[in-house]
Amino acid sequence: MTSRPPLLLTPGPLTTAPSVRAALDRDWGSRDRDFIAVTARVRTKLCALLPEHDGLTAIPIQGSGSFAVEAMLGTFVPPGGHVLVLVNGAYGRRMAEMAARAGRRVSMLEGPETEAPDVAALVRRLAQDPTIRHVAVVHCETTTGLLTPLADVSDVAARHGCGLLIDAMSSFGALPIPASVRFEALASSANKCLQGVPGLAFVLARTEAVARAGGQAHALVLDLAAQWAGFEANGQWRFTPPTQCVAALDRALADLDAEGGPPARLARYQANLAALTDGLAAHGFHPLVAPALQAPIIVTFPAPDAVWWDFAALYDGLLEEGFAIYPGKTAAAESFRVGCIGAVAPPDFVRFGAAFGRVVAQLSQAAPRA
Amino acid sequence: MTSRPPLLLTPGPLTTAPSVRAALDRDWGSRDRDFIAVTARVRTKLCALLPEHDGLTAIPIQGSGSFAVEAMLGTFVPPGGHVLVLVNGAYGRRMAEMAARAGRRVSMLEGPETEAPDVAALVRRLAQDPTIRHVAVVHCETTTGLLTPLADVSDVAARHGCGLLIDAMSSFGALPIPASVRFEALASSANKCLQGVPGLAFVLARTEAVARAGGQAHALVLDLAAQWAGFEANGQWRFTPPTQCVAALDRALADLDAEGGPPARLARYQANLAALTDGLAAHGFHPLVAPALQAPIIVTFPAPDAVWWDFAALYDGLLEEGFAIYPGKTAAAESFRVGCIGAVAPPDFVRFGAAFGRVVAQLSQAAPRA
Ligand SMILES: Cc1ncc(COP(=O)(O)O)c(C=O)c1O
Ligand SMILES: Cc1ncc(COP(=O)(O)O)c(C=O)c1O
Repeated sequence: MTSRPPLLLTPGPLTTAPSVRAALDRDWGSRDRDFIAVTARVRTKLCALLPEHDGLTAIPIQGSGSFAVEAMLGTFVPPGGHVLVLVNGAYGRRMAEMAARAGRRVSMLEGPETEAPDVAALVRRLAQDPTIRHVAVVHCETTTGLLTPLADVSDVAARHGCGLLIDAMSSFGALPIPASVRFEALASSANKCLQGVPGLAFVLARTEAVARAGGQAHALVLDLAAQWAGFEANGQWRFTPPTQCVAALDRALADLDAEGGPPARLARYQANLAALTDGLAAHGFHPLVAPALQAPIIVTFPAPDAVWWDFAALYDGLLEEGFAIYPGKTAAAESFRVGCIGAVAPPDFVRFGAAFGRVVAQLSQAAPRA
Repeated sequence: MTSRPPLLLTPGPLTTAPSVRAALDRDWGSRDRDFIAVTARVRTKLCALLPEHDGLTAIPIQGSGSFAVEAMLGTFVPPGGHVLVLVNGAYGRRMAEMAARAGRRVSMLEGPETEAPDVAALVRRLAQDPTIRHVAVVHCETTTGLLTPLADVSDVAARHGCGLLIDAMSSFGALPIPASVRFEALASSANKCLQGVPGLAFVLARTEAVARAGGQAHALVLDLAAQWAGFEANGQWRFTPPTQCVAALDRALADLDAEGGPPARLARYQANLAALTDGLAAHGFHPLVAPALQAPIIVTFPAPDAVWWDFAALYDGLLEEGFAIYPGKTAAAESFRVGCIGAVAPPDFVRFGAAFGRVVAQLSQAAPRA
């Protein structure tokens, strides 16, 4: 019915460990005490991934990462509130779209996809417009793979008394959040660097901010204050939880501990990145983003200016070899992406580099001469 | 770490088949063609569960059933629109709350929890107030287990030119929707009568209504018109799908076919209901809802007026025996609930009845004499 599953070199859903998938093989009563214990453990461990987590609470939410991001925007930016979104890719732009749909006042500070947000421009904008009370930023822009240095953005937001909302979807659990970064809320998901399965996302938030945010959200199911109040009341989810996905995240968090926590995971992803970029450099492909800004999460490679270029053919060839890559998402030039995250290790990327070479050789030989 | 998993006699998450859980044990590239094929098959099969499905489209959505219900209300009741919600339990009341949160004008027609909605009152209300353009109703009120006869409600709504929105969460896939019922949209979830795992819900809707609804939803992630447009454009999900849950639903739908489709499933649930009510009648417990209105989905039993009564003790005793039941949710009297759905069969309920007898005997003997 389906072909042999490929290794997923994507930004998630990604390759999970057999231990994580094994945790899916059980039914849970969502109101039973065993499951209440799983939920409590997951919430505690999510907070504990940040070295400084006093005053933070973890609020899991059903759905994909976007559900957590929109819930965060709607819950913490109050009706009538004005949020400035830093945009250097598709996910920043989507946050602006979500906040606008929620009826919030939205401004954007847009910059090139290959550059970190312009902190000097942020200072000017916040100084000019005191109605802006929140700043929203993407930690790792999965559009390109670019990592935004958060400390400066946080400092500027704090200096202007603005709450900071972070989309840390593709970074949380591997890339550190500097201790100086003071956010109001941060959204991420089970199936990125935590290496769980998709179906579950979460927001880490200042408990004091959550307690103040009751009734603000633009949708009942996206109301993180009500979701939190449910957990605090009896340890249960307001609405049916994705029980298997929660159990898988519980296991994935235990596996993360066993690996050595976020620093060890980051080191593995960095080794993956090195093996990936070395392997593709051998065939003339180089990342779009400058090394200093390149996160070891996902790498965008510009498409070659060659007559044989055809993403679908490259994709198919690599799939034959047992690898699934990701299409590009950059606005400017055509590109493709390869993820470094998941239950994959440098030898997988060495094999991938060799397979990539074979596929490119095939495609370029088959193409008509220009 | 956790005790032996009990058999779940709940309205979902419920007891799934090993075949369904086995389908969870694979990673899927969410943009890969294998997964696109799974999504397409699931969408087609969901529509095909209704004998009359011309002009219908299936729109799966991430999250629990409530996400689908709120997405349905926000997508189909336009901003400024006025919806009348028929309320005879907690889920009707929640729909009213959702529509109000979305900023829609909401009226409620409330009735007792043990009675079907009052159709004569519905006629009067719609005749009085022509600003009402939508009627929302719960098919099986899981609060009590009461089944609302949909045909009359549908006729009245149609006669007044109102769109009908159905919460068929706990009924779809087993209880028939009469062919005369013409709804604009119907919401349900993977983990009720379809016997999939939680994490995934869906709305079946008139394609023409979806096509008209663009941009109406109060939240981007709950915009079913945009979700649908995504599926139609390239077969992919707008946002990361819960890949394992989708694959499990695909398998669960194949298992439903193999069982003989919704009529065979309904027959099994009816046999479960009979075994359950017989078993508990032997110990003096009888359903709250009259037999004519009792759905073979979940049964509410009023708590006995006895000195030994203690839901937590009953729950714990039954858990020891290997069964998880459900707390009551009725507004009036204290009660408990037992589900008839899931990968369970009459012999399970015979065993349950015996276990129930043992636990009740223990509790009543242990209690101090009144
Ligand atoms: C930075 C970022 N934000 C938001 C999202 C959206 O998450 P999802 O697709 O799970 O809704 C993604 C997904 O890759 C992401 O990388
Ligand atoms: C009739 C009805 N509507 C809505 C819901 C909400 O579904 P969920 O808990 O999956 O959000 C339920 C859940 O049991 C239900 O039975």
